[in-house]
Amino acid sequence: ADVEAGKAKAAVCAACHGQNGLAQIPTYPNLAGQNEQYLVSAIKAYKNKQRTGGQAAIMQGQAAALSDTDIANLAAYFASLPADGGK
Amino acid sequence: ADVEAGKAKAAVCAACHGQNGLAQIPTYPNLAGQNEQYLVSAIKAYKNKQRTGGQAAIMQGQAAALSDTDIANLAAYFASLPADGGK
Repeated sequence: ADVEAGKAKAAVCAACHGQNGLAQIPTYPNLAGQNEQYLVSAIKAYKNKQRTGGQAAIMQGQAAALSDTDIANLAAYFASLPADGGK
Repeated sequence: ADVEAGKAKAAVCAACHGQNGLAQIPTYPNLAGQNEQYLVSAIKAYKNKQRTGGQAAIMQGQAAALSDTDIANLAAYFASLPADGGK
C-alpha cells in the first residue's frame, strides 16, 4: 500500500476524522494509529453496506467511490499516523 | 458512566482488544483512547446486528449480553486509556 497516495486521498476524510486522524466530533472514531487490516475491513464493510446504524450512511456514501487500492492506501496512511496525534 | 465498572466488565474484551486496549490481532481495532460516544454507537450497532461482515459476528455475540449501562461503562473505560498504550 502507498501511504503518500493514501494521504492525498484522505483530504475529504479530515472533515470528520481530523487532519491528524483524531476526530473532532465525538460520535466519529479516531483513525490515527488504528490497525491497517482493521481499517481495510471496516471501510469495505461500509462499502458493501454491511455496516448500518449510527453514522454508517455517511461512510457508505464515502466508501462507494473507493477502489480496493484506494482503501488499502487510506488504511496504510491512517495506520501510519501517531495514535496520540503526535503530541 | 463508571470507568471502574467498565474496567471490571472489560476482562473478556482483552483477549482480542488487548489488556491496554491495543489489539494484538491486526484485523481487530485498538480501542484505547477512542471517542466514548463512538464506542457506545459501535457496540450498540453490533448488538442490534446493524454491523455485519468482517469479524462482526463475534462482536454481535459479545454485545448481545451487554446492557445499556454496561455499554456506557465499557465505552468510558476504553476511552480513558491512553491511545499510545501508555508508552
